[in-house]
Amino acid sequence: MHDNLNLIEKALHSYLSEKPELYGILWDSMRYSVGAGGKRVRPMLTLEFCKLCNGDIDKALPFACAVELIHTYSLIHDDLPCMDDDDMRRGMPSNHIEFGEDTALLAGDALQSLAFEIMLSPHTLCVCEADKAAKAAGELARLCGASGMVGGQVIDLQYENKKASEQVITQMHLLKTGALIKAACLMGCIVAGADEEKLSAAAKYADCVGLAFQLVDDVLDVTSTSDELGKPVNSDVDNKKSTLVSLYGVEECMHRAEKLTEEAVDALSVFEGDTSFLASFARKLIERRN
Amino acid sequence: MHDNLNLIEKALHSYLSEKPELYGILWDSMRYSVGAGGKRVRPMLTLEFCKLCNGDIDKALPFACAVELIHTYSLIHDDLPCMDDDDMRRGMPSNHIEFGEDTALLAGDALQSLAFEIMLSPHTLCVCEADKAAKAAGELARLCGASGMVGGQVIDLQYENKKASEQVITQMHLLKTGALIKAACLMGCIVAGADEEKLSAAAKYADCVGLAFQLVDDVLDVTSTSDELGKPVNSDVDNKKSTLVSLYGVEECMHRAEKLTEEAVDALSVFEGDTSFLASFARKLIERRN
Repeated sequence: MHDNLNLIEKALHSYLSEKPELYGILWDSMRYSVGAGGKRVRPMLTLEFCKLCNGDIDKALPFACAVELIHTYSLIHDDLPCMDDDDMRRGMPSNHIEFGEDTALLAGDALQSLAFEIMLSPHTLCVCEADKAAKAAGELARLCGASGMVGGQVIDLQYENKKASEQVITQMHLLKTGALIKAACLMGCIVAGADEEKLSAAAKYADCVGLAFQLVDDVLDVTSTSDELGKPVNSDVDNKKSTLVSLYGVEECMHRAEKLTEEAVDALSVFEGDTSFLASFARKLIERRN
Repeated sequence: MHDNLNLIEKALHSYLSEKPELYGILWDSMRYSVGAGGKRVRPMLTLEFCKLCNGDIDKALPFACAVELIHTYSLIHDDLPCMDDDDMRRGMPSNHIEFGEDTALLAGDALQSLAFEIMLSPHTLCVCEADKAAKAAGELARLCGASGMVGGQVIDLQYENKKASEQVITQMHLLKTGALIKAACLMGCIVAGADEEKLSAAAKYADCVGLAFQLVDDVLDVTSTSDELGKPVNSDVDNKKSTLVSLYGVEECMHRAEKLTEEAVDALSVFEGDTSFLASFARKLIERRN
């Protein structure tokens, strides 16, 4: 796991090492948020699923980094004043506090472009067959856009200050958080040339892990301290957001997260290789404190 | 030309015809700006270069639409209060005036994703070889991001209220406007399987046309009426932006635009087919009144 994390950090760094004199601030802004030290959950999933399908990790690396860049752009835009208006992220000032709203907006836009650039670069197309690269990048595009992550963000906006049903909240989570986790898992399988049965299993694992992850996120928002989280707590209550915690309470939510995690682990049974990492990875995600 | 325009309009419409009940407002917002009736300069260039390289127009269509979606997303984000803060666009209220800043931001984000989704969709990969699709989409990603269009927007921000040299303004235009026009031309050639010599010629044509286009844009900003333009005039002066008009005056700018247009036309000489459409297209761009 440590080796893979190192690979990811190094690759992310290399993609942002160039810096033109005339507008270096854009690179500073992009690097600031990419380097702010997330858990790299999504790229780790891409590499692990690739390995599980007997694929070459080097082939999956650009796709792993791409999904992290998309995640990072979404956080920058989410924090903007016209969205959640959050001043802090991961214990540091948000991108727009550090660089201004205009640069933060453009850094987010450029990170999305960079994600597709690195998946389809001449370098990537030397190590990964074009049909696999195109299919994987196409899946990420579909799952991060209007029918995926951004769609989930819009549902979230639609239900601000409005009571949402369990069905709506679940759909929102499946898109807002789940879609990108699904893209991460699927891309690992696709570049390794996995068959449809394995792609379905990876999608099932991703849906369960994504929902469990978001349940824990909502629970931590009410049970954690802002020091532990690196961002303000009770933000959902303050923003009058309907969450599953507000519907079911902390205990029932954790119970559901555990059940979903076991469903995720069960889905891994179609793979022949060693699934212990992905099983414990799913379990660790619901035991986390931040 | 009319046939190709029809093809583009129909295809753009079809990509946005789905509309989920739960968050249809996102589709409304995306469709509002995509349908606001631009001149479709970029997609027309993609189709024409494809035809000129003996390629199949149907193969180029998703790439033509993709570059228009990227252009549209950039306009939505450009108009936001934290950027140019423009209330009007093409004679209509800007996207954020009509739908709110949050939805406008996300509509822009989703349009960028949609561009990559349609270039790499299973449907596109049935009509276009994966290696060509991946190369074309990779070029668009590179040219619309930090080293291309977004880079140009950041240079623009850096020189607000600050005197910029001719070199800086030219570099800004080459990236901010030129990069996407270059992507449009190159993608048409790439999907048609053109060789390096033709790609270089298309890039040269695009650079010249892009700079000429922007020169005329800056001239129209001081010589046109807001009725003609469909947006406020004198915005560069009001925003204290350095433009080539402020450096050289209207007459010299139009002279340069004409010279660049002839250079663009000259670059077409390496193509064997009929270049008359692209030649007159370039000339019409500098004769336009809006």
